[in-house]
Amino acid sequence: MVSNAKRYTTEVRGAPAIAIVGCLSLATELIHSSFKDKDELLKAISEKIHYLVTARPTAVNMKRAADQLTSFSKRLHRENVSLAEMVSLVIEWCQKMLEDDVSTNKKIGDFGAESILKSVKDRKVKLLTHCNTGSLATAGYGTALGVVRSIYGSGQLAQAYCTETRPYNQGARLTAYELVFEKMPGVLICDSMAGALMNNHKIDAVVVGADRVTRNGDTANKIGTYQLAVVAKHHNVPFYVCAPTTSIDLSLAEGKDIPIEERPHTEMTDVAGVRIASPGISCWNPAFDVTPAELITGGIVTELGVFKPAELYDRLRAQKL
Amino acid sequence: MVSNAKRYTTEVRGAPAIAIVGCLSLATELIHSSFKDKDELLKAISEKIHYLVTARPTAVNMKRAADQLTSFSKRLHRENVSLAEMVSLVIEWCQKMLEDDVSTNKKIGDFGAESILKSVKDRKVKLLTHCNTGSLATAGYGTALGVVRSIYGSGQLAQAYCTETRPYNQGARLTAYELVFEKMPGVLICDSMAGALMNNHKIDAVVVGADRVTRNGDTANKIGTYQLAVVAKHHNVPFYVCAPTTSIDLSLAEGKDIPIEERPHTEMTDVAGVRIASPGISCWNPAFDVTPAELITGGIVTELGVFKPAELYDRLRAQKL
Repeated sequence: MVSNAKRYTTEVRGAPAIAIVGCLSLATELIHSSFKDKDELLKAISEKIHYLVTARPTAVNMKRAADQLTSFSKRLHRENVSLAEMVSLVIEWCQKMLEDDVSTNKKIGDFGAESILKSVKDRKVKLLTHCNTGSLATAGYGTALGVVRSIYGSGQLAQAYCTETRPYNQGARLTAYELVFEKMPGVLICDSMAGALMNNHKIDAVVVGADRVTRNGDTANKIGTYQLAVVAKHHNVPFYVCAPTTSIDLSLAEGKDIPIEERPHTEMTDVAGVRIASPGISCWNPAFDVTPAELITGGIVTELGVFKPAELYDRLRAQKL
Repeated sequence: MVSNAKRYTTEVRGAPAIAIVGCLSLATELIHSSFKDKDELLKAISEKIHYLVTARPTAVNMKRAADQLTSFSKRLHRENVSLAEMVSLVIEWCQKMLEDDVSTNKKIGDFGAESILKSVKDRKVKLLTHCNTGSLATAGYGTALGVVRSIYGSGQLAQAYCTETRPYNQGARLTAYELVFEKMPGVLICDSMAGALMNNHKIDAVVVGADRVTRNGDTANKIGTYQLAVVAKHHNVPFYVCAPTTSIDLSLAEGKDIPIEERPHTEMTDVAGVRIASPGISCWNPAFDVTPAELITGGIVTELGVFKPAELYDRLRAQKL
């Protein structure tokens, strides 16, 4: 399913960050608004938060946060709390997302690091990552880049390669920035070079994030992820999807049910305001693609552990998620 | 084998065009020079033409043209021709490369078109190409883009997809231009989208050019070609390498013997003079990669016909090439 290209500009990106910034923007609005009663407050929360869900259809995190916050607000509406208390508790709920996300990411980082390091036994590893899944996509630390951070923290990172991630260059702009900023050994490649990289330099694992994981383990993520997974499989390089359980949507059976956002062509034809493509050419610009479970050979790294796609559903159901 | 990055700027690209422009630039120089005798002329030709070979190590065409022109000049030097006649014949030889290349490309286009159309039977085809292999990479018509042109000419082209071809954007700038200019139905994609494209839109064949083909059918071509071939194989999409026999180097046994040029990092970090990558990040920027013969599932399309990589050597030896 492909949604129509809309003319939104991208100010916030990264599935977890979208949900957190969405909820915090609501919290900020609540601080500066007044409501005549709890009915009006509940209506405002529900409307505003569900409007935010429409901004980016592929990531599930905003939708999940909206549903949870609405349900929490409805409970407060029913319960014996004052209007002022209800405002205050909703704001606290939103703020807590920040802390929860960082602690979740650290767990993801450590579980992923443990799995990768165990597979290589006592040597430094070379990782490849795609897009940006770090501090600039989450509340902090990061998911796939959290795994890179954990491995770096344990002194076992030989090299972290990051793709440019065309067309929006999140790898070249954001991941490269995080690698340089934290002095991790990082190397930028073009998206087209991943195959040659795996052929020329032994890569121990590919780590990517997720915008939505379905019940069977299929995963929507930044465009190019699917191709990377195909290339990794060809080279027997383990492929890990790193995502908090808030990115896992047990309501969808498989990847083809995930709506894929198409973005404006100018994001592809222009770079930093400069036209690079020949005038008049048509474009196809899906922002995400779906990687089938069978290509996620390393596993799905969550804050609860590393799961094979096939065991994801049962393991998460056991956790009552 | 990887050659060191040099600070050359790219004014002419495309393996056949490099050889033709190289030889024509020599011809132009001969017109405007004077030589005291045939010895001096022969020395000048040999030195100047072999200097040009050093500019781009991966494509074999310039080297082959240099060897042939030197050998032709040596023959003229030995034979009973005057200095003026020798100058004139060398210039004619260079000019003839232009005509020969166009007629060679038309044959490549027709052989490739025939092979692809035969495989689909009576319907329009969707093709994917990489980099630029058209009029802007050759003397005219093109190799892989010549195949696209031939199919378009026969009314059987449903869609020609072209990759951006990072980092130098030959697809977005040049192939897109040729498609638009000739009103062919063309769509630009990012290099990372080829896998999703093959999954979402049935692609009938991938057609690419070659900078050098070795005896066993391994092929060096623009970076990203190898990855495309892996992805095509995964989707059972026939993969064609389109190249004149002047790009085939029977002196090399296999692809690992081909020198791969690395280009300056600024070609990756900057676009149209604008820095896009985070400051301080290291880069890996090989300009070419090697696609092994076994991934060239459609065949190698030459002006002599379409050959399976395994039969290339015997077929070309039979032609005394």
